[in-house]
Amino acid sequence: MKLNATKVPIRVGNKYIAILNEKRAHFLDLHAGDRVIIKRHGQQGLRALLDITGNSEIKENEIGLYEETWDKLGMKKYGEDIEIDIAEKPISTTYIKKKLNGERLSATEINEIIKDVVEEDLTDIEVSYFVAGCYVYGLSDEETANLTKSIVKNGQQLKFGKRIIADKHCIGGVPGNRTTMVVVPIITATGITMPKTSSRAITSPAGTADTMETLTNVTNQAPKLMQIAKRIGGFITWGGGVDLAAADDKMIRARYPLSLDPQGMLLASIMAKKFSVSANHVLIDIPVGPQVKIKTLKEARELKRRFIKLGRMLDMKTRVIFTNGDQPIGNGIGPTLEAIDVMKVLSNDPTAPKDLREKSLMMAGVLLELCGKARWGRGKAMARKILDSGKAHDQMMRIIKAQGANRIKPRPGKFSKIIHADSTGRVVEINNKLISHIARTAGAPKDPEAGLYLHKKLKDTVKKGEPLYTIYADIEERLEYTKQYPLKKVFTIK
Amino acid sequence: MKLNATKVPIRVGNKYIAILNEKRAHFLDLHAGDRVIIKRHGQQGLRALLDITGNSEIKENEIGLYEETWDKLGMKKYGEDIEIDIAEKPISTTYIKKKLNGERLSATEINEIIKDVVEEDLTDIEVSYFVAGCYVYGLSDEETANLTKSIVKNGQQLKFGKRIIADKHCIGGVPGNRTTMVVVPIITATGITMPKTSSRAITSPAGTADTMETLTNVTNQAPKLMQIAKRIGGFITWGGGVDLAAADDKMIRARYPLSLDPQGMLLASIMAKKFSVSANHVLIDIPVGPQVKIKTLKEARELKRRFIKLGRMLDMKTRVIFTNGDQPIGNGIGPTLEAIDVMKVLSNDPTAPKDLREKSLMMAGVLLELCGKARWGRGKAMARKILDSGKAHDQMMRIIKAQGANRIKPRPGKFSKIIHADSTGRVVEINNKLISHIARTAGAPKDPEAGLYLHKKLKDTVKKGEPLYTIYADIEERLEYTKQYPLKKVFTIK
Repeated sequence: MKLNATKVPIRVGNKYIAILNEKRAHFLDLHAGDRVIIKRHGQQGLRALLDITGNSEIKENEIGLYEETWDKLGMKKYGEDIEIDIAEKPISTTYIKKKLNGERLSATEINEIIKDVVEEDLTDIEVSYFVAGCYVYGLSDEETANLTKSIVKNGQQLKFGKRIIADKHCIGGVPGNRTTMVVVPIITATGITMPKTSSRAITSPAGTADTMETLTNVTNQAPKLMQIAKRIGGFITWGGGVDLAAADDKMIRARYPLSLDPQGMLLASIMAKKFSVSANHVLIDIPVGPQVKIKTLKEARELKRRFIKLGRMLDMKTRVIFTNGDQPIGNGIGPTLEAIDVMKVLSNDPTAPKDLREKSLMMAGVLLELCGKARWGRGKAMARKILDSGKAHDQMMRIIKAQGANRIKPRPGKFSKIIHADSTGRVVEINNKLISHIARTAGAPKDPEAGLYLHKKLKDTVKKGEPLYTIYADIEERLEYTKQYPLKKVFTIK
Repeated sequence: MKLNATKVPIRVGNKYIAILNEKRAHFLDLHAGDRVIIKRHGQQGLRALLDITGNSEIKENEIGLYEETWDKLGMKKYGEDIEIDIAEKPISTTYIKKKLNGERLSATEINEIIKDVVEEDLTDIEVSYFVAGCYVYGLSDEETANLTKSIVKNGQQLKFGKRIIADKHCIGGVPGNRTTMVVVPIITATGITMPKTSSRAITSPAGTADTMETLTNVTNQAPKLMQIAKRIGGFITWGGGVDLAAADDKMIRARYPLSLDPQGMLLASIMAKKFSVSANHVLIDIPVGPQVKIKTLKEARELKRRFIKLGRMLDMKTRVIFTNGDQPIGNGIGPTLEAIDVMKVLSNDPTAPKDLREKSLMMAGVLLELCGKARWGRGKAMARKILDSGKAHDQMMRIIKAQGANRIKPRPGKFSKIIHADSTGRVVEINNKLISHIARTAGAPKDPEAGLYLHKKLKDTVKKGEPLYTIYADIEERLEYTKQYPLKKVFTIK
């Protein structure tokens, strides 16, 4: 069937899309989401996804070509004859249906799905059905390992030519938990390579990438990152800025609308990011507590089992630790305030938050032991020595410089409000969720200077009238907005 | 947040879509599929779906508005300030997740989903998750009834002001099964209203709508159909041409890519179409056999149970019959060839296929009894009398004329090829699937004149060299294409 080409002046990403009038599509027995081969006279065919429109802008004798398709075919003028033929559906759609029928998928089948996800040969609808299958039936350990490998195989992998590559990951939910920015400088100061990709906040007031961004540039491309890691041993960059686990990003898009988070996909997503920077010594931090993602030790243990097993299947030495998720780490909440905490720890400032310092030292210690730098039980002492000597600070300054920007000294927002204690006693509870809401309403992470500073932590004694915390905002209105929350209820004092 | 409006010169159907640059979206913490409120100065906000682009055609300070959105806002010039705010996700997304978690949905919850499907407030991804939930967990009888009601409630319903409205439906899979075109004229000749909407072929060589289309126009709008039914008691039109069960069409779009057909959705889809023409006396034909959709009596009985129960819950008198699905009905396969069969039966042509005549009379008989026109056991005789008298034929001619076109005498395709018997014996099997493939390859239903004519049927005696069937095509090439199939294997002779 020959049709007159017309250009749809829109780019849609790395996809080839053609669009037909619904009458023509009906006549050709074609449906939205079908794969077609479109062909200029004398050229090889191009595989494209079909879209259908009921509107008259694409006429019955026309085929609309989106810009990428138009360019790829080398089209010059409107009205040229284009041949259209139906193409096979990718075989991966049958594997997706298999999963939706509750069957297990083989390595080859999973890889076929992931390849087609990356090559944009699966539609949003089809990817959603894969997510649904994984959500309803879960993924076995084998499937999870194969999913991880496929995500890496079908993406970019950074290789550093080093025997030992360290990495860490924390299962979220604890505000202010910026240990990465202390651990990476310590570890890389010993000569171990630690190429760290971090995420931005999704529902929290700050992610490590947001916090690091208040100090330097975090959207670096792979070649530059390779260079930095070679020269100074590591970096802390935004994972979304490097295209390491492209398939994962696309599946997250399908998971987002209903917030579906099949555990196997979460595990694969985390481990693929480590695997794609060639990490082979990995520390996983699972905060446990009623206010964080993992609420009980039982859940934590099952998750640990899966991480260890997955690590083994992927040839990654994996250590899993459980930490206390009962309160924020550090005093600052929000990108800038958290960056200030981190820099205080690194520069051995006496006002640096002790919990952030201690947790970071402990984690760096475990990693040093795991990587064979320190004997078992001696890691934390070694980490402390590096931190106290100023070497970690120097290393952080090198990383900040290497990543390409050197921000002025970070400062919290111009507008602030102090919340005082109503009674005297001990802090017995701090409400993480409420802290997140207040910090986000004040503007974090969009306004990096917005957030909270906690003057008190759990078990501290408090006198009536003493400041409990300060809210910072860059825009006065946003400070006002925070009044919608029961600000006094952040701390429970007894 | 204020952004400069720019127009995206594309129509997308009855949806309002706005598009942001991914950097801006990230800054605003917005994702593809989010609902937003967009607002011109001094106007009420418009709810729209958000799309995200990584391309530079939408700049960071811009918001792209698709044509419907641009028009709805009454935009005139590019660059005007547009305010954008995040809007709530529809509550129906939480019900979809509930279904995906294996829970049952209430009438209100299902209605909320269907309402949002019709109002385009659910994205393709979200609709797919609903389909996935129904596919994996099934739908209870209550859920199925509520789904049916919701589909009708959120669509157009034709009301004829008659006490009795008849309808019929056949669970597909039998080639040539065009009883509708005989039954409707018989039933309406008695004064009963029978407003029949039919489908086009999806995977078969012809649907009733395709076959009827060789005789008259089948894309009629509701007002005209109402008029026809009032004047002559019925019509046979393409269901897709009237917007009766809009939600169903949209769910079919999401089911199509993986051919997902949750039974509850199929039942609801069928019964909603009856309900939307106000049918209250419904005959369901379930062909049973190894070559059709329903393979065993056990399956057929369970399906019958569900139809009867659903009919009761919807206040529809429902009769279910099991018929033989072992071979095609009639001699012609393909729109024109089937229409010729039908017209022969209606005009009492002695060469008319007996099986089509008998099956149609039996079905019309059951419907006459169900509607109270004939006493139990006397329906078929009454139907035969109407057919033999020529009243059914006259009625069909009235319907054809009323629907607005009067096609010239239908004729099969110009190119043909006869397949002869290789041996002498009895026909013990006819391969329905193979017949469908050959007829479709020859061009049906796109070329209505293409198809097959069967000279023999099951149990007929055959002599070596006798013609078994003729293939017709409108394009010589297509006739050649059919050689890819084992043409001799359509009939098994022993």
